Amino acid sequence: MTDSEIKSAILDMGRRARSASYALVKLSTEQKNAILVAMADELMARQETILAANSKDLERANQNGLSKAMIDRLTLDPKRLKAIADAVREVALLPDPVGEKLTDWTRPNGLHIRKVRVPIGVIGIIFESRPNVTTDAASLCFKTGNATILRGGSEAIDSNRALAAALQAGGERAGLPPDSIQLIPFTDRASVEHMAQMDQYLDLIIPRGGKGLIEKVVATARMPVIKHYDGVCHVYVHADGDLEMAANIIVNAKCQKPGVCNALETVLVHEGLAAKFYPLLGQRLAEAKVEIHADATAQQHLGVPAIAATEEDWSTEYLDLILAVKTVGGLDEAIAHINRYGSHHTDSIITADRAAAERFQHEVDSAVVLHNASTRFNDGGEFGFGAEIGISTDKLHARGPMGLAELCSYKYLVDGNGQVRG
Amino acid sequence: MTDSEIKSAILDMGRRARSASYALVKLSTEQKNAILVAMADELMARQETILAANSKDLERANQNGLSKAMIDRLTLDPKRLKAIADAVREVALLPDPVGEKLTDWTRPNGLHIRKVRVPIGVIGIIFESRPNVTTDAASLCFKTGNATILRGGSEAIDSNRALAAALQAGGERAGLPPDSIQLIPFTDRASVEHMAQMDQYLDLIIPRGGKGLIEKVVATARMPVIKHYDGVCHVYVHADGDLEMAANIIVNAKCQKPGVCNALETVLVHEGLAAKFYPLLGQRLAEAKVEIHADATAQQHLGVPAIAATEEDWSTEYLDLILAVKTVGGLDEAIAHINRYGSHHTDSIITADRAAAERFQHEVDSAVVLHNASTRFNDGGEFGFGAEIGISTDKLHARGPMGLAELCSYKYLVDGNGQVRG
Repeated sequence: MTDSEIKSAILDMGRRARSASYALVKLSTEQKNAILVAMADELMARQETILAANSKDLERANQNGLSKAMIDRLTLDPKRLKAIADAVREVALLPDPVGEKLTDWTRPNGLHIRKVRVPIGVIGIIFESRPNVTTDAASLCFKTGNATILRGGSEAIDSNRALAAALQAGGERAGLPPDSIQLIPFTDRASVEHMAQMDQYLDLIIPRGGKGLIEKVVATARMPVIKHYDGVCHVYVHADGDLEMAANIIVNAKCQKPGVCNALETVLVHEGLAAKFYPLLGQRLAEAKVEIHADATAQQHLGVPAIAATEEDWSTEYLDLILAVKTVGGLDEAIAHINRYGSHHTDSIITADRAAAERFQHEVDSAVVLHNASTRFNDGGEFGFGAEIGISTDKLHARGPMGLAELCSYKYLVDGNGQVRG
Repeated sequence: MTDSEIKSAILDMGRRARSASYALVKLSTEQKNAILVAMADELMARQETILAANSKDLERANQNGLSKAMIDRLTLDPKRLKAIADAVREVALLPDPVGEKLTDWTRPNGLHIRKVRVPIGVIGIIFESRPNVTTDAASLCFKTGNATILRGGSEAIDSNRALAAALQAGGERAGLPPDSIQLIPFTDRASVEHMAQMDQYLDLIIPRGGKGLIEKVVATARMPVIKHYDGVCHVYVHADGDLEMAANIIVNAKCQKPGVCNALETVLVHEGLAAKFYPLLGQRLAEAKVEIHADATAQQHLGVPAIAATEEDWSTEYLDLILAVKTVGGLDEAIAHINRYGSHHTDSIITADRAAAERFQHEVDSAVVLHNASTRFNDGGEFGFGAEIGISTDKLHARGPMGLAELCSYKYLVDGNGQVRG
């Protein structure tokens, strides 16, 4: 396809999505839930077609020598497809945030103002290899009354096409307005840029993937972008912290799932604890086979081998069983370190001192700031949101775990009886 | 200055603003209010200096042949300066949204989650000629704990420098952290682009001005932008609307202040009312000296001269005593017209039919949708917000009037007693 053909195809999808978004606001919660169930049924009914499409993706992946981890992420089987369909059914069971009255008040002139949650409109989702994002993102955006334009990675294009076709066919049989869920059917890279420029039709763009993709979207987008950059998360052990609790939380936050954004990357330890806490920490990290990058004080007390940390370690997201360890003078230094080197994602303080915890929570500029708990709790499911479209490291509109409410905007409905402005 | 000197100066201001933002979160509401009062006092104490600086701007404006209206907007005098200082004092009296608990809940594992309002961080404000934006924007952003980088228009540079210096000197004497309020001291156009690229230090950028400025910021910004585009506002008179009320609201919405964004631009009238309502409307618009651009049905019944409307009229923001008038078949056509040609700003329905009003409010995709009231009520003051930084036509983060709460982000504070993830 030429660039102008791509642009015109994307613009046409945008126009149709905008039009679908106006049909979507007319659906009741019951209608939306019935459509979601029909989508899930159709995903199961089309198991053979979907797995056949997935085989084509896997064949290409093998030919192209993709890594084992990437091939695993790409692979669908009957069990995984059922999980995908079940996830769509679960979205049907979640409460509908659309129409919720956020607040209302009456002005002295008698005007009654209601602030209510409404769909955002049209959302563009750009993602990489996992095909389940197609159904997750589409079902969450649909539940909140948004039209979606999905742009998946080329590795999963056959699977994505088959999954989107099932959502559309199942949904439309139950009353889904046409063009509510559109998948860009081609994989030309230029489609990302044309989506990012199309602010007349796209109200929001959510890139889900590596830094290269996010950077491209941030650099070109004309509409709001909600994104997830790094997760350089910290645990700070304050002077009077419970040392056993601190060691447990550190090991959990680092090791329970090291490859995710809310995993721990740097531990800060109050200097007064060096002699007492480092030996315990060193032992526990060694048992968990964690490679340690430590400053000189920590190296001296850990009692296990540790690599000398460099400046770069303080801002590195290892996503692996590697942990940076630094000794700090106290609360102020810990807060300053986190605000300087962290990624404003998730940080935790271990302390019995409530006032120190409050200061830490107040002054650390991160989406989620914990006290005596693992960083791994920054998660839509753990927050009880039921579903999450991602974790935002942005500060506007949505910060931290993004559930259904964060896929909504609001509007003001004002009722009068003839009021004019004097 | 060379481009790289400008870039480096802007980056340095950004770095200092970020650092100030961390000092700002430590101020109590009482400290912030005392600082605002000290700023207002200093504005009054420096009357002579500020008015002398303003004279330089006015001299240049006259030399450059600026329009009378622009020169009026630029002009300060003792009365206007007092109004500017009083506005800063009023911000001190407003409730502080920072720290407000938005919601909290406890998870089955005992984790207690609080969602609290916090400052956004560093806000860039780019504005054109009115010098009062310097003090308005700076005081509202400061009240909400944000550091600001202000970039005013070259026409007002001397006034802006004098006003910003007063805010800084007065504020710092009362404890304002240095670099909390910075004004870009030069007027090179490249500063806008360098601000828009500096997403490591600027969390939000708010352009206030004409379409050229907004377009430039939208096209180049890497961080969220909150903006105000057009105000193509509608009043739709439904079949059973009170005709006297409709005429009053239309005249008020069009004429009370025609040059503002929430002024009415297009009237839609149910075809069943053509013979009864148009003669009354024509008479009232003629009395108010409004030029009418009307469709054929309206022209036939208005009883006063009207220009034949063209397609272009339906999307024009006249900002003048000109009104487009169109006859529609009913509610659906009115809603479709508004969603297609409007600017998603403010629209009103006149009807005695509650169900029709609800449908209109639900399906019209605008920030503020009124029933039996003038479009002129989309305004922070009229909503009771106390102060407004602007009216957003965006859908994310802030929609409609933006008060202090909309200058805040939020974060989650999570308290546990050793919870780890299983």
